[in-house]
Amino acid sequence: MELKAMSKSELEAFLKETTEEYDGYKAKGLKLNMARGKPGADQLDLTEGMLTAVKSNADCYAEDGTDCRNYGIVDGLPEAKKLFAPMLGVSEDEIMVLGNSSLTIMYDNIAKFTVFGTGNGAEPWGVQAREKKLKWLCPVPGYDRHFLITEKFGFEMINIPTGENGPDMDMIEKLVAEDDSIKGIWCVPMYANPTGITYSDEVVKRLASMKTAAADFRIFWDNAYCIHHLSDTPDKLLNLLDEAKKAGNEDRVLMYASTSKVTYPGAGVAVFASSKANIDYVKSLMTVQSIGPDKINQLRHVKFFGDFNGVTEHMKKHAAIIAPKFKAVLDELEREIAPLGIASWTKPNGGYFISFNTMQGCAKEVCRLCKEAGVVLTGAGATFPYGKDPEDSNIRIAPTLPPIEELELAAKVFALSVKIASAKKLLAE
Amino acid sequence: MELKAMSKSELEAFLKETTEEYDGYKAKGLKLNMARGKPGADQLDLTEGMLTAVKSNADCYAEDGTDCRNYGIVDGLPEAKKLFAPMLGVSEDEIMVLGNSSLTIMYDNIAKFTVFGTGNGAEPWGVQAREKKLKWLCPVPGYDRHFLITEKFGFEMINIPTGENGPDMDMIEKLVAEDDSIKGIWCVPMYANPTGITYSDEVVKRLASMKTAAADFRIFWDNAYCIHHLSDTPDKLLNLLDEAKKAGNEDRVLMYASTSKVTYPGAGVAVFASSKANIDYVKSLMTVQSIGPDKINQLRHVKFFGDFNGVTEHMKKHAAIIAPKFKAVLDELEREIAPLGIASWTKPNGGYFISFNTMQGCAKEVCRLCKEAGVVLTGAGATFPYGKDPEDSNIRIAPTLPPIEELELAAKVFALSVKIASAKKLLAE
Repeated sequence: MELKAMSKSELEAFLKETTEEYDGYKAKGLKLNMARGKPGADQLDLTEGMLTAVKSNADCYAEDGTDCRNYGIVDGLPEAKKLFAPMLGVSEDEIMVLGNSSLTIMYDNIAKFTVFGTGNGAEPWGVQAREKKLKWLCPVPGYDRHFLITEKFGFEMINIPTGENGPDMDMIEKLVAEDDSIKGIWCVPMYANPTGITYSDEVVKRLASMKTAAADFRIFWDNAYCIHHLSDTPDKLLNLLDEAKKAGNEDRVLMYASTSKVTYPGAGVAVFASSKANIDYVKSLMTVQSIGPDKINQLRHVKFFGDFNGVTEHMKKHAAIIAPKFKAVLDELEREIAPLGIASWTKPNGGYFISFNTMQGCAKEVCRLCKEAGVVLTGAGATFPYGKDPEDSNIRIAPTLPPIEELELAAKVFALSVKIASAKKLLAE
Repeated sequence: MELKAMSKSELEAFLKETTEEYDGYKAKGLKLNMARGKPGADQLDLTEGMLTAVKSNADCYAEDGTDCRNYGIVDGLPEAKKLFAPMLGVSEDEIMVLGNSSLTIMYDNIAKFTVFGTGNGAEPWGVQAREKKLKWLCPVPGYDRHFLITEKFGFEMINIPTGENGPDMDMIEKLVAEDDSIKGIWCVPMYANPTGITYSDEVVKRLASMKTAAADFRIFWDNAYCIHHLSDTPDKLLNLLDEAKKAGNEDRVLMYASTSKVTYPGAGVAVFASSKANIDYVKSLMTVQSIGPDKINQLRHVKFFGDFNGVTEHMKKHAAIIAPKFKAVLDELEREIAPLGIASWTKPNGGYFISFNTMQGCAKEVCRLCKEAGVVLTGAGATFPYGKDPEDSNIRIAPTLPPIEELELAAKVFALSVKIASAKKLLAE
């Protein structure tokens, strides 16, 4: 029976019963975490062989004879470029392979564009910001750490609603055509954080070809989950750089990925791909900044995987571990929440998150209830710029870190918390 | 006989003879390099054991149980802080242990201060630069990559002459007391690049206590060679942070070092030490920028060295390899150049360089002659801001990279080039 169809007394009985069950879990003193998109230890164990992939002095040389222990090669080893170029579907002169992590490269690129400009003759964003507030488009719900960067750099962030095909392109096209103070957009185009959706071909094409009032408008294409499939019939994403080239807009495209959730979040390599002109520009700036990334760690990746096929095969092992975790949470939600008609959620084909929408005004209360019972969630609101979810509805569930027994417990506590918050809300109306 | 004492005909005979000898080397088609301060392969071989210091999943955990493979710990592992804090003589809450390399951290700190300010309430340097040109003090000769950073960020660089005790403190004190547009100074205080000198206690104390017109004046203390002794009676450097605390100026001190020339330039760790307030400030900014440095590589360092004593013992192995290289070059100079009275050079107790001063107006010609004979040197002028040595006199010799046989050859070519350039210069006067 849907909760909304219940009478007041039925709702009160439901709340009482649910609260008793919740209190039972609360009494257990649980310490569970569904907050961050972290791989579990069993996933990290998969890469043990990489630790000794470079194990002697003789192993430290690149194919061209470069001693990877010494200084140099600011844009990454040629064989690392070859390994990872297929991940983002670019050529080897359109990619840099750097250190740990892609978030740092995004931050660094925004810092560079702020101080030095985007390299196409437009004034540095920091200079333009003297005259007018600069703005940034943020498809929501989205990734809190993206929003933190643009908040820190002083951009006014504009929420863009996201549907099952991606962000609202009508709204985006209108905004960027009219307002030259809009300098960029955050996109997680595949298995998006947190919604799990993949941008449709039409959305990619429109992003690539749309007219922008600002010549230095940039798409920050964080393709973090591009090889993180959970199913045998993965989503497909059109290549933004290819589409942008067709429209002559390739310089607006900055694409990122990393091995943070492939090998190690704490010791991975990040890749940055863009037009040849942008790569050359960023490299010219990095030459002042860097003596080169950790080339030995790049060699470890190259030797461990061999080629890109080795990477995609490896990802199947991750999927085998985390797909059952997603299923455990989704099964609990389907069983306990679906019949009540009080929430909606995504069933992603890949990535690291389930995006859960409570009834309006319940997300914070759900998080509070979970926390009191020892289950940590990403704070409600975190998926929106400034931490402000106008509906107080979205919660990002990250099911990968806990062992599956803990996850099943956490999902139960979560479902009970949703029931309690919803019933209270309906009783208060 | 000193060259200056020769008659014209003696000089002409000297030039002819020397040029014949030079041409003999030139005909050999040499390919030798004394340009960059790179460790030789034999030095890099010393750290082979570090490659397998973390070799299994079980090895990946920090002392406090942190899984170093996963996300987190933006300021470095506690045991890495413990290992490296003695290197800069600071406590563990005054240090961050980061990734590869210290140059990148210096750049990053200048970028942060440009965009966000130094954290003490002063306006960001980028904002102040709207009103007036900001300036930076550059002890010369100095490190080209330092100067490149401040050039890139738009500072007007002011040359500060350096003597055997450090930079000219009378000049520095006067400048910083009067001009609040001076925001910082580059210092390599121990075995300086390239002069090899170590700052005297008095210089350190005056830098720590001097009055500055700018509240956001910062000393970039690149202590790159603090443990790179070449002798059993090493230089001693007073601790700048300690001295600055006595004067209440600890926030002006930013100290850097790395393991680039201890373990691997391509896969080392860098450390940044400062006042607790500065560390907290930079950490608060880095939390937006970084998911943490490569913690596995930090663990490798910790496991390989054990403690700081392990580091200093390891440095003796480096000294055993490179001290003979310095001796080979210095012996050649002593034998071939000293009697001619045409140049002066440093005999450092540590570090990576010999600083060589030709007669005025000869440095470029010496580098050109060396290059023509297949010996690459750091370009003349590189040790000065904007690449402009007003005397055209200073050449930085880096003796560590080539094997000793090659180095002896290169030193011969160098000495011959100095003789030729000097004789030509005297003949033209």
